[in-house]
Amino acid sequence: MSRRLIQDVFRKHLLSPELAREHDGAYLDLGAQKLAFTTDGFVVSPPFFPGGNIGSLAVHGTVNDLAACGARARWMSAAFILEEGFLLAELERIVESMARAAEEAGVEVVAGDTKVVEHGKGDGIYIAATGVGLLLADPPPDPRTVRPGDVVILSGPIGLHGMAIMSLREGLAFESELQSDSAPLGELVATVYRAGVRPRCLRDPTRGGVAAALSEIAEASRTGILLEEAAVPVPELVRGACEILGLDPLLVANEGKMLLLVAPGDEEATLQALRSHPLGSGAVTIGRVQAEEQGCVLIRTPLDSTHVLDIPAGEELPRIC
Amino acid sequence: MSRRLIQDVFRKHLLSPELAREHDGAYLDLGAQKLAFTTDGFVVSPPFFPGGNIGSLAVHGTVNDLAACGARARWMSAAFILEEGFLLAELERIVESMARAAEEAGVEVVAGDTKVVEHGKGDGIYIAATGVGLLLADPPPDPRTVRPGDVVILSGPIGLHGMAIMSLREGLAFESELQSDSAPLGELVATVYRAGVRPRCLRDPTRGGVAAALSEIAEASRTGILLEEAAVPVPELVRGACEILGLDPLLVANEGKMLLLVAPGDEEATLQALRSHPLGSGAVTIGRVQAEEQGCVLIRTPLDSTHVLDIPAGEELPRIC
Repeated sequence: MSRRLIQDVFRKHLLSPELAREHDGAYLDLGAQKLAFTTDGFVVSPPFFPGGNIGSLAVHGTVNDLAACGARARWMSAAFILEEGFLLAELERIVESMARAAEEAGVEVVAGDTKVVEHGKGDGIYIAATGVGLLLADPPPDPRTVRPGDVVILSGPIGLHGMAIMSLREGLAFESELQSDSAPLGELVATVYRAGVRPRCLRDPTRGGVAAALSEIAEASRTGILLEEAAVPVPELVRGACEILGLDPLLVANEGKMLLLVAPGDEEATLQALRSHPLGSGAVTIGRVQAEEQGCVLIRTPLDSTHVLDIPAGEELPRIC
Repeated sequence: MSRRLIQDVFRKHLLSPELAREHDGAYLDLGAQKLAFTTDGFVVSPPFFPGGNIGSLAVHGTVNDLAACGARARWMSAAFILEEGFLLAELERIVESMARAAEEAGVEVVAGDTKVVEHGKGDGIYIAATGVGLLLADPPPDPRTVRPGDVVILSGPIGLHGMAIMSLREGLAFESELQSDSAPLGELVATVYRAGVRPRCLRDPTRGGVAAALSEIAEASRTGILLEEAAVPVPELVRGACEILGLDPLLVANEGKMLLLVAPGDEEATLQALRSHPLGSGAVTIGRVQAEEQGCVLIRTPLDSTHVLDIPAGEELPRIC
């Protein structure tokens, strides 16, 4: 509810058509060329976790937001807010991960800033990252173009990133086995475009997980989305950790997974393209768009009962990204 | 010293040629077009001060960093990090100021993000702002092109922004009279370009004030800068507050002032262009570039003695922007 209130404040005063699109980013029209532009604050707690840290995460989050805009990340900036006393050695590990992740993703960190705040006025380190990317095709994907019959494809198993951090935070015994699968998806999405597919909508299911992402798409496109629960790949470790903590894997944050909504005729080509890339080897179809139940996500359970997905008002995983 | 250490960490791992330029921003080369790109964290404490708040400041800071890159701000993003319990009414005042400042400066806020951190893990509100601007001329200004004989021009009186905040923080009695002069300088700089002047270097003297900005330019250009102390306009209120707090006005942060280094033949045209604009009505020449004392800023006092400017190792005004 507070997120909704906050969003209303922004919408009320900053009503740019780009902000109103409620996508992961904006498009900058330069006449001859269109760019994608995204920003994100990273406040993950703790900043180091199995499989990555806030530095690599800031790069992956930026690259993936741009990928979800149908763009290839090219440049990015990073603004650091450090709490007094944060260890320089830890900062160095983070910046090193950031550099490595940026190189791997083919994005260049070209601008930066650092502010230091007093002890007790921060939480070690926060990073705000902003990315500029080049469109893979124009027009870019747009959730409003999604229509009944479209296919919902997921690039791989969900929940590893979110549960690695949650387990660490809750001190679960098997935490060391759960590794974040945070990864940059720019090349994976480019592979789909190279196969000739123009996805109607791309979305990386971060905060709020697959459930929140699909719910937003259903709302924007005024369609219903029917999700086959049995088709959603959930690793055993994720399922176990979710059961212990009382969480729904569909609501757990990811970083390194992509949802693609494509025309029915593009389903096979999309799956094939995704599976040809290591980060998409587990790609599967998990649902379909329908005309009924506009604005809702319906879940069909393995027992063939169907219910409307209920997204809790509170945020289940507040500082996962 | 800690800033230097931090910078070294970034330089060591993120050695992009753009970061290495150590300017206020980066240039993105799109082939047909070049863009300027800057980012900044805003952590000003308190977030509300006479003459503005963190919202208008984030816009002015972004616009002015781009202006210092020789670019006109066109688009920006804002990532908010809010501490749990921060009043929605205060957030709304801030966003409203941001919207008004953006409209006034002709920049569009097209992307945003909000993260909420637990009570005690922030300080009310932090904003990281990132801007994209269009170059006014190519090649853009570059401190390395500054040479002996060049003229140092300041767009107006210094210290009002920094001392308004410092006085508020220290509870000085005359605080209410000191108003921040934070303002967007995009149009002012464009006026200079329209007059046919291509400044060799532009710099907005924020953290570290005029002293730090000139010192960086002297270092980058391997020249010396001779500053006429009597020529630097310092309002009486600023001088008084600085005396009470033991600060040097030359080291006080500004937001809404610009330093321009121009060829000697451009001095008159620059002053005339600046003075034709309300935000440059107090523009004056404050110094000259020389071949001697490379990397240093020399101050000539009204009594005609000259000394090397000493920039203290610690940061005098930690959270002024």
